[in-house]
Amino acid sequence: MTNFEEILRERKEEMDGLLEAYLPEEEGMQKTIFKAMNYSIKIGGKRLRPIFMQEMYRCFAADDSEEEKAEPFFAAIEMLHTYSLVHDDLPAMDDDKYRRGSLTTHAEFGEAIGVLAGDALLNFSFETACKAFGREEDAEWNLRVIKAIKVFGAKAGVYGMIGGQTVDVEKTGRPLTEEEIEFIYELKTCALIEASMLIGAILGGASSEALAIVEKMASCIGMAFQIRDDILDLIGDEGKLGKSIHSDQRNSKTTYVSLHGLEASKNKVEELSTEAKKLAQQLSVSEFLQELIAYLTKREY
Amino acid sequence: MTNFEEILRERKEEMDGLLEAYLPEEEGMQKTIFKAMNYSIKIGGKRLRPIFMQEMYRCFAADDSEEEKAEPFFAAIEMLHTYSLVHDDLPAMDDDKYRRGSLTTHAEFGEAIGVLAGDALLNFSFETACKAFGREEDAEWNLRVIKAIKVFGAKAGVYGMIGGQTVDVEKTGRPLTEEEIEFIYELKTCALIEASMLIGAILGGASSEALAIVEKMASCIGMAFQIRDDILDLIGDEGKLGKSIHSDQRNSKTTYVSLHGLEASKNKVEELSTEAKKLAQQLSVSEFLQELIAYLTKREY
Repeated sequence: MTNFEEILRERKEEMDGLLEAYLPEEEGMQKTIFKAMNYSIKIGGKRLRPIFMQEMYRCFAADDSEEEKAEPFFAAIEMLHTYSLVHDDLPAMDDDKYRRGSLTTHAEFGEAIGVLAGDALLNFSFETACKAFGREEDAEWNLRVIKAIKVFGAKAGVYGMIGGQTVDVEKTGRPLTEEEIEFIYELKTCALIEASMLIGAILGGASSEALAIVEKMASCIGMAFQIRDDILDLIGDEGKLGKSIHSDQRNSKTTYVSLHGLEASKNKVEELSTEAKKLAQQLSVSEFLQELIAYLTKREY
Repeated sequence: MTNFEEILRERKEEMDGLLEAYLPEEEGMQKTIFKAMNYSIKIGGKRLRPIFMQEMYRCFAADDSEEEKAEPFFAAIEMLHTYSLVHDDLPAMDDDKYRRGSLTTHAEFGEAIGVLAGDALLNFSFETACKAFGREEDAEWNLRVIKAIKVFGAKAGVYGMIGGQTVDVEKTGRPLTEEEIEFIYELKTCALIEASMLIGAILGGASSEALAIVEKMASCIGMAFQIRDDILDLIGDEGKLGKSIHSDQRNSKTTYVSLHGLEASKNKVEELSTEAKKLAQQLSVSEFLQELIAYLTKREY
């Protein structure tokens, strides 16, 4: 493990701990829903979205000691991401029984609780984000939270993630045009990464000009991340990935790679990565975030 | 149609128009999701929750001319209620093909879009509620909106509606205790009626003392409404109800009526209705709301 990977692991564990603090206690007559929510979150994940958010917060905040006030959103964005996975895995959607080597939520708890656990995480993500509102006197902070929660809703909704998911679901099994692929990638994958980075920057106090750069950078990272995913499905190492490759081919799924070929796709990832790094330098982001961008676009799992 | 029923119909139509203004345009690559959302809302309904909210707003607001500012929440609560019906109807849940004489959302659009339409309405309900935030200078109003959105999330979530739904789903086919029935009714039915009335009152500027009374009144109305539902399933007129009766018996469902018998249930509705009216008088609510409470606890459909 390189030094960077070691730091990344620590940051992930820090987020695991933070998330834990915001998850519900497994008690009361409805405890099955709490168990299913916590199970879904604890299956794991890279916690990239909250880490992105934290990095952007730190990039703009004048005073890091106030970071605690932004923490509800770190937890909320991961809950939101997790709900989308729980519903994606349902029999009516991708019908996946396993995720990261564990049974998916509906496979573990039954389909009805699978639906409800996703609903619960989505609803709870908004409730958790609302915990960021401060006291009456914190008027300026509360205005930032209002702005952040609007971005949260917009990027997650029908003009964001759910919109992308709709087109993805509708077009399953049919060949996609380049325009459709870009629409799906932008909404289904990029939107939540944009939300993560924008919300961190908003809570940190970024200007509108800076936010425009943040959104562009996040979009490049998301797109590069998704195309890298397609590439790994073609040439990745199953051992490292922890899942079988060639699933896109098996499912006759149009991807960026199937449309443009491997070389052009690698070049596109390189191009997006270079663009993201350029924007990152404009924003004077941390060395860690710069390394993370490079790492994600070169990752092998 | 009595004069009251005529007014109720007008109020419902007013809400239909208001909802329409907040629904998305059916355009863009993801238009199927917009169609499915709008279809779900337009299947119809009594629009009781937004009417309750509007009544409580009017009860407390010093200046009715500002009601427009509260309207996003009128639309949001109906979207929230509708998402819960869309997911309830899914094959994994109640597996209902028809609602109010129309195909349910998943029956019309397929199961995947059924799941996504529910998600979309839930997410959009929060986005719509957020539209109530005013300008920076409206600090006092924005504090009310913050309070309202927290109630919205809490009453809809795992300690509210979703919590009740979880227990209901888990216990399907098993006999329930009195404690379980009360828990399910309180969370699954009363919570959203409480949210409706509380949010109207909060936005209207009600004091904490008044809010406590509003919540109690809403709980009585919700409970009476639900027990009346059980009674109608036993002795209702299928023609008036527009659905077949004895469904609880067919599904071996424990209800308040199956636990306590018809007479005791009728008495309970009467008692709850009297209590609600008493609280309503303490709050000096409109004549219309008083009539509505009486009407709902005596309704035959």
